[in-house]
Amino acid sequence: MERRTVFFVSDQTGVTAETMGHSVLTQFDDQLFRQVTLPFVSTVEKAEEAVRRIDSTAQTEELRPIIFSTLVQEELREIIKRANGLVLDFFDAFLGPLELELKAKSSRAAGKAHGMQDIGAYTTRINATNFALANDDGAITRDYERADLILVGVSRSGKTPTCLYMALQYGIFAANFPLADEEFESGQLSQVLITHKRKLYGLTISPERLHQIRNERKPSSRYASMQQVEYELRTAEGLFRRYGISFIDTTETSIEEIASRILDQTGVERRLRP
Amino acid sequence: MERRTVFFVSDQTGVTAETMGHSVLTQFDDQLFRQVTLPFVSTVEKAEEAVRRIDSTAQTEELRPIIFSTLVQEELREIIKRANGLVLDFFDAFLGPLELELKAKSSRAAGKAHGMQDIGAYTTRINATNFALANDDGAITRDYERADLILVGVSRSGKTPTCLYMALQYGIFAANFPLADEEFESGQLSQVLITHKRKLYGLTISPERLHQIRNERKPSSRYASMQQVEYELRTAEGLFRRYGISFIDTTETSIEEIASRILDQTGVERRLRP
Repeated sequence: MERRTVFFVSDQTGVTAETMGHSVLTQFDDQLFRQVTLPFVSTVEKAEEAVRRIDSTAQTEELRPIIFSTLVQEELREIIKRANGLVLDFFDAFLGPLELELKAKSSRAAGKAHGMQDIGAYTTRINATNFALANDDGAITRDYERADLILVGVSRSGKTPTCLYMALQYGIFAANFPLADEEFESGQLSQVLITHKRKLYGLTISPERLHQIRNERKPSSRYASMQQVEYELRTAEGLFRRYGISFIDTTETSIEEIASRILDQTGVERRLRP
Repeated sequence: MERRTVFFVSDQTGVTAETMGHSVLTQFDDQLFRQVTLPFVSTVEKAEEAVRRIDSTAQTEELRPIIFSTLVQEELREIIKRANGLVLDFFDAFLGPLELELKAKSSRAAGKAHGMQDIGAYTTRINATNFALANDDGAITRDYERADLILVGVSRSGKTPTCLYMALQYGIFAANFPLADEEFESGQLSQVLITHKRKLYGLTISPERLHQIRNERKPSSRYASMQQVEYELRTAEGLFRRYGISFIDTTETSIEEIASRILDQTGVERRLRP
């Protein structure tokens, strides 16, 4: 199958161009795409350099490139449109209709998305990340008063990456607490969790997947055995039900989706937006 | 000033709708927007519920809502278009031209972006996050053979959030090593860093900002004093120059931008795409 090159051209980091491009490309999953990000295209020189790069790809490959552009400045967008490829211009598609609706001209200024226009948002995000790290795995801190959420689940059910993602993406203060022998044997949650019961959200996972994950970490250990894994998950889910804690199965769920479903179901407000 | 409500409607997490919406809304920064995400709109019932919610907002507010939709299924998109507001349909704008160019019909299947179609990508991401955590702050692990990058800089210059962001967003294995008394006094990097010199990338920050950040953490400490902060930063930047290590000033730079600039300059390849 012939491969086609896709360029994400941005005057900033390229995150928006990549996100939108990827989203639409997944609709053509029988095609092969090579993805190249060209970030920080913020001057005429850089735009011309980007065009040269695209054109040189067009010359050496059978199929002409596809270009997703989130450039804001008219002058730079016009340069990119001369490239030998299909240019999909994000602002062409949306800025016009919005200007009409809002009865306002856009500032057409580069560097707004993901800029540092909001130092408060930056601080929120760093603080949320530090909070997640300090309150990871039921660690010493347990600063649950300040937590927006406390994720509970057995070891390796996805708690830490989910907390960190929520911190970085949404500025949410998410702690996590591992369910372990103490809870399994007593069949009870510890007092510190009961105190903050309305902040709890459970993660579970299939025994097969958990066995696989733990086995990569500690091969052939009791910790990774199917018997242990099944016991822990059964007990953890029993605890969730007994205490009325909502929970989500992370087995076939991406981190974005876990985070998004938890926010959707709990109504916890994002402290910042991407 | 009158506020307007913006809805992000998605059959998945809403991350793409939020990213693209936010990106274009920042072009109108003299306007006030209330942002509401409606994720997992994947059935006719949920689409109708979304329309009811949008219409009810339209009735109570002066200005009609703006709706960014990344719904894929034709049937659901048609329902959303009946809502009382300006509907900006992501797939209307890009899917048609792409189908023509690729000479292929898109699958029009929901749940592709951020789905779990690729369990390998999920594992990469989790492994990268675990790597960042295990190799944080020069911790015990120092598994620098496997590192794609090693960030160096003084305490609180932004190393940890940047490593975690790169892990979650790009699956990159980023370690970090804090420059401290040992390096400041000897004026040399330790051997473990020199061995991996081509993986090093430096972070610096303005003395004023670092003083502020450290002061929040340890008020009125020597650690946070302007004198100490200036000494550390001057020495760290001297080390970067002596060893020929590229570095970036994180003071007015968002985490996305720090990550994106480092990848752009080093040519380190992303292990996964959003």
